[in-house]
Amino acid sequence: MLVASPIETLYEQVAGKVEKLIRSGVLRPGDRLPSVRRACAQHGVSLTTAVQAYLSLENRGLIVARPKSGFFVRSQLLDSVREPARSQTGSAARHVAVGSLQSRLFDESGKPGVVPLGAAYPGTENLPVKKLSLIMAAVARRTGARGLAYDLPPGAEPLRRQLARRSLDWGGSLTADDLITTCGGTEALALCLRAVARPGDVIAVESPSYFGTLQQIEELGLKVVEIPMHPRDGLDLAALARAVKTRRLAACLAVPNFNNPLGSLMPDENKRQLLEILATRRIPLIEDDINGELYQTDRRPRTVQSFDRTGSVLLCGSFSKTLAPGRYYEKVKSLKLTSTLATATLPQLAIAEFMANGGYDRHLRALRRAFATQLQRMSEAVAEAFPAEIKVTRPGGGFVLWIELPANISAMKLHDLALARNISLAPGPMFSATQQFPNFIRLNCGHPWTPRLARAVATLGGLVRSPDAATVSVH
Amino acid sequence: MLVASPIETLYEQVAGKVEKLIRSGVLRPGDRLPSVRRACAQHGVSLTTAVQAYLSLENRGLIVARPKSGFFVRSQLLDSVREPARSQTGSAARHVAVGSLQSRLFDESGKPGVVPLGAAYPGTENLPVKKLSLIMAAVARRTGARGLAYDLPPGAEPLRRQLARRSLDWGGSLTADDLITTCGGTEALALCLRAVARPGDVIAVESPSYFGTLQQIEELGLKVVEIPMHPRDGLDLAALARAVKTRRLAACLAVPNFNNPLGSLMPDENKRQLLEILATRRIPLIEDDINGELYQTDRRPRTVQSFDRTGSVLLCGSFSKTLAPGRYYEKVKSLKLTSTLATATLPQLAIAEFMANGGYDRHLRALRRAFATQLQRMSEAVAEAFPAEIKVTRPGGGFVLWIELPANISAMKLHDLALARNISLAPGPMFSATQQFPNFIRLNCGHPWTPRLARAVATLGGLVRSPDAATVSVH
Repeated sequence: MLVASPIETLYEQVAGKVEKLIRSGVLRPGDRLPSVRRACAQHGVSLTTAVQAYLSLENRGLIVARPKSGFFVRSQLLDSVREPARSQTGSAARHVAVGSLQSRLFDESGKPGVVPLGAAYPGTENLPVKKLSLIMAAVARRTGARGLAYDLPPGAEPLRRQLARRSLDWGGSLTADDLITTCGGTEALALCLRAVARPGDVIAVESPSYFGTLQQIEELGLKVVEIPMHPRDGLDLAALARAVKTRRLAACLAVPNFNNPLGSLMPDENKRQLLEILATRRIPLIEDDINGELYQTDRRPRTVQSFDRTGSVLLCGSFSKTLAPGRYYEKVKSLKLTSTLATATLPQLAIAEFMANGGYDRHLRALRRAFATQLQRMSEAVAEAFPAEIKVTRPGGGFVLWIELPANISAMKLHDLALARNISLAPGPMFSATQQFPNFIRLNCGHPWTPRLARAVATLGGLVRSPDAATVSVH
Repeated sequence: MLVASPIETLYEQVAGKVEKLIRSGVLRPGDRLPSVRRACAQHGVSLTTAVQAYLSLENRGLIVARPKSGFFVRSQLLDSVREPARSQTGSAARHVAVGSLQSRLFDESGKPGVVPLGAAYPGTENLPVKKLSLIMAAVARRTGARGLAYDLPPGAEPLRRQLARRSLDWGGSLTADDLITTCGGTEALALCLRAVARPGDVIAVESPSYFGTLQQIEELGLKVVEIPMHPRDGLDLAALARAVKTRRLAACLAVPNFNNPLGSLMPDENKRQLLEILATRRIPLIEDDINGELYQTDRRPRTVQSFDRTGSVLLCGSFSKTLAPGRYYEKVKSLKLTSTLATATLPQLAIAEFMANGGYDRHLRALRRAFATQLQRMSEAVAEAFPAEIKVTRPGGGFVLWIELPANISAMKLHDLALARNISLAPGPMFSATQQFPNFIRLNCGHPWTPRLARAVATLGGLVRSPDAATVSVH
């Protein structure tokens, strides 16, 4: 029980005690502080006092609040790290050529013994393994013949119904009849691309873009024009407006909510403008909302689709494996028949049940907290281990970091050097059809922080500082 | 206990008794006779005598043996029904246009209350629902994180190992490393087509061909040249040899074992010749072995792939959802990444376990027996209800019948008339890129025979005999 002394208020006393814990290293950068409720009990003070104490520490830059995650000790080092600048791109439409890199990255990231900072997977510790397994088992026992029958498009109705309900969260008002389930986000995107474009057509994409999407575009014989990105606000709309005027675009493909690798989040006003720009030439938008639920902002960001009144947005989800193709519904449904015909039924029913019983929302809350912590830890470790001139994104969601290394560093060389030390990472040129970003890397923060990860990041820092990773090496 | 009389042998007495049961209608066409072992007990004779009796009845055309299924009462009516002749086709390369029909057929076949003679589905009564559900549940409980992780190509190793073992049955010697698992037979074929052909390329296909495959080809922007078929031996190799010489073919796509809809089975010698013909121009073969396990011949037919020594055959399976792409392995694996990335893990592991514990083989034995009976019953019902001039296939496997109606009958009209009476069927023009087979229909025999099916076939026969189904109807 604390009693206010004449010269300092009660909350300042609490703040002072916490500050000591931080200064002495008992609480280290990235550590989560006890919840406000817990702090009340620990210090024997009221809720108001505890909140005041934490706000005071936050004002002084010692801790940082993360919505729905609590308060964290702030790294002083991180303050000095800059964010990458707006990306630069050429304007020519290009065929894509990142294929072999993707296969390699997946292969190496899955190898036991390799530190998985390459492919952007969440660690299984972050997944609701037990719960989903039990639901799958229960659904399998209960469902009988229906679980074995072909589930033709539009796909399992219980799942589509659950998703339509969720669409309210992202500003939409979809019905089960607007949705088609697929074998995953990858198939959803492939179907959309095929619905709106023919080989040789040009697609406007974000730069940087997820390499898997670039490879899909490549395999379909399409070309891309890369639009520069702001590290926080996403697509450079002025650049897009110019591109729309100067060439015929079959579609624009974007990840407005937490682009991979940037973690950028397009403001609502930009989402409206994006639709207006595309509407001038009736260009459809393929909206990949794969990261929409992984927000660390104060609420679920809206989809661009939720602003659309013309059916011109083909909205793709992920875990949910679902797709709302707007006015392209019939075309997409027909393509699904010739792509994979049906989607495995039991996993769909299991996911529907997981959503219906509230398990999915609980899982997402835990996942957002875990990713927030993991991003914070990784950012700090990178700030500590890498040279001071690097630039690092401050993503508002998702679970990857995008790092700009000194200009003379070759990300491809660094990738090879790191792999020789059993560390996988994703080199920048994979995220561009034109091999931009030669000195960028993306780090996966999907795994709980461990000493092994800390050592790997320290090793990477050492490699970046060594002459071996420079583009002109000394022999 | 029978005792031989002076004027007839013991086995003739047994045969005489059985014949009476048939003539009197106690045993009706399509009924299975008691097993030989049972007949011994029933008539109190030796095994040899019972076998002799059945063989004598078979020689006289009263019963028919079906390998591994036993003896069945033969329909005399069926004897007078002819088989369709070799199909005729034009030689021009065509774009395909069967898309909307496929969607419609799937939609209508799935509707409750509609007699499902259209889409070729097996009835759920014929599927091992309970066993597979239990295995799925057990695998889900046991597998944990692995069942939720991305299963990237080449896919689940336990399943690939089981399939490699089975490849011995079809004359092959595949290893787990030769195989890639997919989201189903449809995805397997799509990947193969994309691996060997670019939009505008020409694929040689069987005529008639499964409409789903024709629609895949259409959606990929490919063209087809249709090769005529013999109703029993499959591809007309002389016609194929001519096509190979006169145009550049990107691939040949065939179902050598029990083509859908013909049920034709290519003899081994033809399979060898097929490879030779294609080898002259280094044309790859996409071999769809979807029906290979559904043989009613005396043993599992070999795949064409098992004769190949050059890696030029891309072999696609079905239930097993697997694909052995030969020298196109890397290309197919890379396309799989951009098509659907991963395949649902749990169903793969469940199927692997079903194979490993012998359940799959037991299921296949039961399924072959069921399909044999169902094909026989349907053939007889058709022979009884339809006009005498129709021609009907005698498939050596699979579970569909292909029926040539009188020349003046429009299968499309018949389809509409039947649907108005809640009966679905597949009209012939769906099975051709050039709308051949205007007076053919395909009937699904995947469901256990019931009075409801019998009534539906009688109704169809009535429609065929009515003037409404004729191409020139009288007003």
